[in-house]
Amino acid sequence: MNQDRYDAFRALHHRPGAPLVLPNAWDHASAAALAEAGFAAIGTTSLGVASTAGKPDATGAAREETLHLGRRLARLPVPVTVDIEGGFGAGPDGVAALAADLVRAGVAGVNIEDGRPDGTLAPLGFQRELIGAVKEAAPTLFVNARADTYWLPDRADETARRLSAYREAGADGLFVPGLQEEPVIAALAAEYGLPLNILYAPGRLPVARLAELGVARVSTGSLLFRAAVRHAVDVARAVSHGEADTPGVPTYATADAWSDAYGK
Amino acid sequence: MNQDRYDAFRALHHRPGAPLVLPNAWDHASAAALAEAGFAAIGTTSLGVASTAGKPDATGAAREETLHLGRRLARLPVPVTVDIEGGFGAGPDGVAALAADLVRAGVAGVNIEDGRPDGTLAPLGFQRELIGAVKEAAPTLFVNARADTYWLPDRADETARRLSAYREAGADGLFVPGLQEEPVIAALAAEYGLPLNILYAPGRLPVARLAELGVARVSTGSLLFRAAVRHAVDVARAVSHGEADTPGVPTYATADAWSDAYGK
Repeated sequence: MNQDRYDAFRALHHRPGAPLVLPNAWDHASAAALAEAGFAAIGTTSLGVASTAGKPDATGAAREETLHLGRRLARLPVPVTVDIEGGFGAGPDGVAALAADLVRAGVAGVNIEDGRPDGTLAPLGFQRELIGAVKEAAPTLFVNARADTYWLPDRADETARRLSAYREAGADGLFVPGLQEEPVIAALAAEYGLPLNILYAPGRLPVARLAELGVARVSTGSLLFRAAVRHAVDVARAVSHGEADTPGVPTYATADAWSDAYGK
Repeated sequence: MNQDRYDAFRALHHRPGAPLVLPNAWDHASAAALAEAGFAAIGTTSLGVASTAGKPDATGAAREETLHLGRRLARLPVPVTVDIEGGFGAGPDGVAALAADLVRAGVAGVNIEDGRPDGTLAPLGFQRELIGAVKEAAPTLFVNARADTYWLPDRADETARRLSAYREAGADGLFVPGLQEEPVIAALAAEYGLPLNILYAPGRLPVARLAELGVARVSTGSLLFRAAVRHAVDVARAVSHGEADTPGVPTYATADAWSDAYGK
């Protein structure tokens, strides 16, 4: 069953010209609503998961919330991939155990990042061991290895070396958030024989252009979470000042049914 | 300190012509963003809290999530009131203990409803005991007693008897969700000498009209939660099909700071 889920999720990354658009949820309701809307797979956003719990992102503080959510979302009818930050501060054994737990629960994939809370990159050897340990413990977990070389300043020249190392360690996909340079995207998408994930950014490269460049997966990161919270504030202000215009908002019954129809 | 908080929250309900507009949050991020936007107090929505955890509303299933969130939100710089459904299936002693726990954590108020998961109303005597027990255990907790007589079909004629009983039991405020009839609102606002809470509904009576009718508190219930989730799906679809237009969306840094600046 893990093998089938892995194969199905992996196949979504190997459709030339038709990248997987992966929306990132932060709780069960957002994930269920996105699955209901027809998205083929659902990711999580570590910022969203941490922030909903009142915790800072990317510091390892939201480990328990992330695992709890991952296990719950694994019951959705679509593949789910969980953002486990850099492994929540654990070493290779700890992250491997966590990965095995998630894959047992039915999670299809994880993101593992090399950026650290202090703005540095994890040592390359450490990160390679982490990825290798996860793949050994959970071979049917799709590991999206994230290189934060464009996310952090002045590290772009380390991208190639890191992506090569992560591929050798067994990564199933490569993720370079912050990268928006067309020639670099095209080169990285062609170079490694692994699906390339790019983070969508409003006003930058749209999905159609990323598809032409050979990108296999476009994720939304924390965008949906941030937009949702902002929208709640906008609606509250509209109520205060006059009339809230909320076309298409799900009814109470529809929202209440998310717990039931998606992931009993 | 509890007394000060109670007095401050209560005072927000006693400003003739200027009702408290109470937005209902479902997690720390939404609450922090609403506090940051300047709302004078924050409520919670039981639908939102249950649904984000993948649980059904109003069944008592989300007791732990509600208490955990309430304790966390109590650290916000504005008064917070928690929707405890009908007390999560507990009797007067259990609900009193829960209320004492919340007020110790710094929560300013609670909503207690008489509607039950099976669509009936709690026996009047039971509900009166519940409210009385809460006020005895936590005199500085603002108890908003909710009569579901307009929320459920064919029970409207029990409204007056229930509101009288809840006032006698010590309620600080009265809440009649589903009520939108102007003459009834005006009568109930005048009759009991207690602040009347009405649930805002898009396309129905706006806050300004509710203010004229004597309403003291207008809450948004699950509206903001439902609108936020819907908006996330809309933005995800826009990303898929072209360009997402997300003006004013908070940056990553702003969203990450909610855990820090609001409720350390």
